[in-house]
Order: sequence, then C-alpha cells, then structure tokens
Amino acid sequence: MPHLHVEYSDNLKNLDVDRLLLRLNHALAGSGQFEELDIKSRAVALASFRVGVASVARAFAHIKLALLGGRSAEIKRQLSASLLEVLKEAVPSTPGLDIQLCVEVIDIDRDSYSKAHLPT
Amino acid sequence: MPHLHVEYSDNLKNLDVDRLLLRLNHALAGSGQFEELDIKSRAVALASFRVGVASVARAFAHIKLALLGGRSAEIKRQLSASLLEVLKEAVPSTPGLDIQLCVEVIDIDRDSYSKAHLPT
Amino acid sequence: MPHLHVEYSDNLKNLDVDRLLLRLNHALAGSGQFEELDIKSRAVALASFRVGVASVARAFAHIKLALLGGRSAEIKRQLSASLLEVLKEAVPSTPGLDIQLCVEVIDIDRDSYSKAHLPT
Repeated sequence: MPHLHVEYSDNLKNLDVDRLLLRLNHALAGSGQFEELDIKSRAVALASFRVGVASVARAFAHIKLALLGGRSAEIKRQLSASLLEVLKEAVPSTPGLDIQLCVEVIDIDRDSYSKAHLPT
Repeated sequence: MPHLHVEYSDNLKNLDVDRLLLRLNHALAGSGQFEELDIKSRAVALASFRVGVASVARAFAHIKLALLGGRSAEIKRQLSASLLEVLKEAVPSTPGLDIQLCVEVIDIDRDSYSKAHLPT
Repeated sequence: MPHLHVEYSDNLKNLDVDRLLLRLNHALAGSGQFEELDIKSRAVALASFRVGVASVARAFAHIKLALLGGRSAEIKRQLSASLLEVLKEAVPSTPGLDIQLCVEVIDIDRDSYSKAHLPT
C-alpha cells in the first residue's frame, strides 16, 4: 500500500505510460504519506471500451488509489487533486478526441490486509 | 462516473464485446441516472482464470458498476438487475460449459473524486 | 462470489499462474466458507508497473478477495493469511529482485449483487 491503478483507453496514442507511472509515484512519495518502497503502481491499456452511446471519438484515463483506511477526507482530497494534476500534464488535448480524466480514492480494510516482503 | 468494468473468461468464445458494451451503456443511459457522456465502460478478457477446483469446463462474466455514493439501495438493485439482463442476452448457453454471470455495484467516495474534461 | 483477483508484475518470470490459481481456490474451498463452484479467480500479468521511484529491480504480486458482506473480521483475517501463505509458496525469492506480496479483502454489497447460472 498504496496501490495505484491507471486504466486508459488505447486511443490515447501518445501517452508515455512509464513516465506517467514514475511521476504519479513521485507525487505520492512527495505527499509525505507513504514509504517510497510501498508505492505500487500499474497501468493497463484498454482495447475494449465505450464512452456513452454516441458515435463520436472519446477517450478516458482513470486512476484508482487504494489506501489503508484511516486517512482524513482532506488528505484524500489532496492526494486525488495532485494525481489529477499529473494526469492532466501527461495526457495532452487531442483535436477531434473528447477526453475524460478521473481519480478516485478508496480505503483498504486495514484489519484484513496481509503482506510479506522478500528483500533482495 | 459511472465506471463499468466487464471481466470475462476467454473461453466465452462467441461474446461480442463491443456490442455488449454498447448495450450496457444504453441500459445505463436509459435508467435516467446518468449523463450519457459520463458513462465509461470497458471489458477485459481473462486468459488466466479458474472457477472452483473441479476439472470441468467453466466460464464466467462479471460486471462491476462503480457509482458516486448517495444512490438508494433500490436504485442500485434496479441498475444491477438491468445490467444482468443485458449480460444474459449477450452470453448464450453453451453445451458442455457451465457459465456464471454476476453484477456488483459499488460506491465511489464522492468527496475525493476528481475529474477533468478535455473537450474536442 | 467469492471473486479473487491476482495481479503480478511481469518480472516475476517463474510464476506458475495456473498452479497458483488452483492452490488459491483450494485454500478458499478448504476454508468452509464457500461453495466450490462459486469460487471465481483470475490472474493478470502487469507489463506496465512501477514500485516507488528508485531505480532498483522490484516486483509485486497482489491478491484482492471480494466477498459478500457479513463475514466477521476474524474470518477475513484468516482468509487473508491463508491466501498470503499460498502466495509466498508460489513466489520464490529471487536474487537481485525485491518482491512485495499483499492480500486485501473487500466486501461486496450484498443487496445489489445479482447473478445468473447457465448450467451445462
């Protein structure tokens, strides 16, 4: 924890995913809320997607940040806003393509969370 | 929001995923609960899956609908039921294959949800 | 239900995913909490991932177990611990690679969960 998931429709052709993940992790590390090593992020490109029902070119990128419960609403709002800023920088406007960006934050149940570390 | 995720085991060979996503989105749009543009759906085929432990041919398709919190239990039940109807139409019975279909609805924390729109 | 998701960074080269899923399902079946047929598990390899911000070789595998609400904290802790044991057996330490393993358990809203069964 934290676990960060990026999903993005694969018509966002120019998205540099590795760079995005690194910048998102820097934003999380810079928040002071987490150990650097604990930040685990992944991105998945979506080949099958549909936004609404209209026949227009649409795209989206969605971030889900999962945290062990107990952080305040204010901290979660700040984390969400800072991740959205990183996402906005990474996804440029594209002529002819309607793009939606979103960030959600969810709590992980602390009581049933288990982990192990196999160091090098 | 809403965000809809379809996962399906890739032994559901005849599933027309693009058509399914469009029909699911029509069901959501027709519920009157959402703006058409806001409905963001995706589908992922699962190459690695296992149902139970028995050595028989089994498949599943699972829908997760994520909504900003605040809707009533009754509305969530209705949305879930209508999505299941669409899924049942899309996934035909297949001789020799045991198929499970499910729909879950989860709340997104409204307070920490961020979004941006880059229109065309 | 239950729904089990495994995500793993694809630098865990020697992970036998099919065997892992079968062993996880055996652990769930053996818990006495579920019908064998109801256990639906899947695994996804992550090609795009980033752990922290340092330039060292890191990997992770994460299990999410989603259950219909109502089980006690103690049962969820036990399930989490038993899944982590299976994961630890499946993912060997690897010289030069820092590996994190985690298990989270989440509740599915029982009231809006829908399902259908198309038997063979």
